[in-house]
This record gives sequence, C-alpha cells and structure tokens, in this order.
Amino acid sequence: MPVSETAAIEITGYNWVPDFAKGQVRDLRVRWALEEIGLPYRVRLMHPAEARPEGYVREHPFEQVPTYHEGDIHLFESGAILLHIGEKDERLMPREAAGRARAIAWVFAALNSVEPALQSLALINSFCAGEEWAKLRRPGAEDFARVKLGRVSDWLGTGDWLEGRFTIGDLMMAAVLRMVEPYGLIGEFPVLKSYLDRAEARPAFQTALAAQMRDFTGTPPARAELVRRA
Amino acid sequence: MPVSETAAIEITGYNWVPDFAKGQVRDLRVRWALEEIGLPYRVRLMHPAEARPEGYVREHPFEQVPTYHEGDIHLFESGAILLHIGEKDERLMPREAAGRARAIAWVFAALNSVEPALQSLALINSFCAGEEWAKLRRPGAEDFARVKLGRVSDWLGTGDWLEGRFTIGDLMMAAVLRMVEPYGLIGEFPVLKSYLDRAEARPAFQTALAAQMRDFTGTPPARAELVRRA
Repeated sequence: MPVSETAAIEITGYNWVPDFAKGQVRDLRVRWALEEIGLPYRVRLMHPAEARPEGYVREHPFEQVPTYHEGDIHLFESGAILLHIGEKDERLMPREAAGRARAIAWVFAALNSVEPALQSLALINSFCAGEEWAKLRRPGAEDFARVKLGRVSDWLGTGDWLEGRFTIGDLMMAAVLRMVEPYGLIGEFPVLKSYLDRAEARPAFQTALAAQMRDFTGTPPARAELVRRA
Repeated sequence: MPVSETAAIEITGYNWVPDFAKGQVRDLRVRWALEEIGLPYRVRLMHPAEARPEGYVREHPFEQVPTYHEGDIHLFESGAILLHIGEKDERLMPREAAGRARAIAWVFAALNSVEPALQSLALINSFCAGEEWAKLRRPGAEDFARVKLGRVSDWLGTGDWLEGRFTIGDLMMAAVLRMVEPYGLIGEFPVLKSYLDRAEARPAFQTALAAQMRDFTGTPPARAELVRRA
C-alpha cells in the first residue's frame, strides 16, 4: 500500500465530494498508476467547497485536483501525470517507440475523444438533471456517447486490452468509462463491460479506490455547491 | 514549405469541410508543429461525408483526422501527435524534465480542461443552433466557457507564453482558443486576444493554415451531413 507520509511524491485530492462523485475523482487515476508500480505517495487533501490553499492557483490553474509534485516536477492534468508516471516503468508504458506512441494515443483518445461525450451526459444526468435543456438534450447526448463507446468496443473486439497488453492507455480509458456506468450505457456494450471488469479487478485499482474512499473524511458544505470541481 | 510528396511523414486531412470549419480541422495543429521545426510531410486527403478508405478504422478508431505515420510509428489524436513531434526538437518542447513536464501539462489542459467547454459552445452555435435545448443551454454553456477562458487569461497575466517560452502547450492552447473566436468570447479577454494574435502571427502558423486551406479542393456533399466529424 504505497500511501506513505514520507513519500517523495505528493498528490492533491478532496476530503469530501457528493456521493455520486465518490470513487470518480481524478486523483484515482494517479493513485492507480502509482499502485501498479508500487511507488509510494502522500496526499494533500482539500475541501472542494472551501477556499483553496494560498497559492494553489499557481499549482493548478483551474484550481482542481489532482496536482503532482516530485522534486522539481510540478504537474496538473491527470493525463500529463499518467504520462510522467508511465515513463518510469515498462509495466505502464512500453519502452520501444512504436508501442509507447500507441499507449500515449489512447490516453489522449480517452480524454479528448471519449470523455467529453461522457461528461456531457454526466452534466445532464447529475448536475443539471432538473433543467429543461437537459431533458431535451438527453437523447441526443446519449446517442453521441453511444457512438464513442461503440468505437472503443469495436476496436477492442476480442482483445483484453487496447494494444494487446495493459498500458496507461487502458488505465485512462477504464477510468473514463467508469464515469457512465451508473447510467446503464456500459451495459449495452458487453465488450466494454468485460473490459471494465478486467480493469477494475486489478489489485492496484482496488487499492487505489479504497485509498480514495478512505480519504473522504470531510463534512458536506452548508450548500451543496461547487461540486462540478470534482 | 514542408509539404512534400516524398516526405517520410504522412498525415491525413479533409478535402472539404463546411465554411465554418475551414481553418479549424485538427490536422492544422500537426501541420503547424511540423512547420515550426521545418519537417516535411505529405497529406492523404479524404472527404468527410464519404466512406473512409478501406481499413481506415484500424488507423483511426474514431475514423476522424488527423492520423500520423512515420516508419513504424502510427498515431491518431492530435495531442499524441504533437507530443511525438515535440520530442524531436527543443524549439517545441524543453529537453529538461521540469520544463518538458509543464509543456505536456498544457497540452492536456488545452484538450481536457478547455476544449470540452468550448466544443459544447460550438455544438450549440453551429451544429445544433436551431434546436430548443441549444437555445436554453447557451447562456450556461457560455458562462462555463468564460470560467475556463478566465483561468487561462489569469495564468498568462503579462506573459507572452504559458511557461515563458513558446512550446507545444501554447500551440495546442492557441489552436483550441481559435475555435470560439467567431463567437466573440475571446474579445472579452484582452490577454487571450493578444496571446492568440501572437500565436497566429508566427510564420509556421500562417504557412500551416494556408496549406490546410489549399487542400479544400473537394465538393460539398449532396446533404451537408457528418460535419461533426470535422
């Protein structure tokens, strides 16, 4: 269990989020990658509805989590952090140029071709659920998400992982797909359901998830606002 | 002018898109990066409303453009391609680890923290402009885009570039910000307007833009469909 107060790597996370966001906050991706290669890390927690620590905006221009600090490396954006961690260990990213390039392509595909479509749906189903535009847009947004999910499903076919072996590309894709599991869409794609089950069965994922859940020790804000930060 | 039929690098692009997408298609980012370091490339063109070439789905799982081929390197996703090109030359990405990490963080920030908010707005203003949900959602989507733009503006402050010198992070951020220029939002942020002017004044950008525009030699489809592929 690589959470350690004396670790050289520090990440940031939240000590409270609404129930639907628990297990979904983006520091999970970073914890998971670190667990895959057994690298210790410590966590600096903050409350999403309270003022950020002084100067945090210079650590994270969008004042979200996670950030990542390791010596003179200061990162934000879970994708950039995954790449940095991936460079450390062949178990996360092939060393040869062609395989490395493919793993990186899938990290970007997860974040830029798939996640925006799924996040639109999350916005509609969670944050804006009661709004008229959300009701009108839901069918179209679901169809758009299905197109993206179908593409990933077709690519996977009978394979276990996107490029034959587990990489940071799979880690990111699985983390992104998990986002819409509560809405039933993944169940429409048996290939994606198996893929997600396979990813979530990894001991590193389980340890990372438990660690994030354990850190939710904060109390709900007076008004349930700012949850979109999560 | 690095477009050359005998180049080792091949990218894909479109030979037609609707007027509002001209100069916005994502191969522009790749052309621009290659122009910055004077690396020759050739372009394989396709029509967005026609069937993709046989096997293209194995090149690009979402059947979009650009792809990038160079020897045994086969890439899709403009972010992954920019990183690959960035590795070739210090003018695009610092060699030292800390600066390199920052440039990469900004590529991801452009694609995952900024672009989804701007793309929602493009969806509302262009593709779904006549739909009721789009009318209802526009103010909220504009406000959300403003939050993201404000963060980038605040970060830049009086600086010329995101991390003191031009990197692939600026190239990607400028390419993303250009997307909402027609909607007037950039004009609300003088810092971003100057930043974009500075980026677009680079000779490499101008050459890349001219090359993309020159390649629009195709004819409009019978029905103006599938434009969201662009």
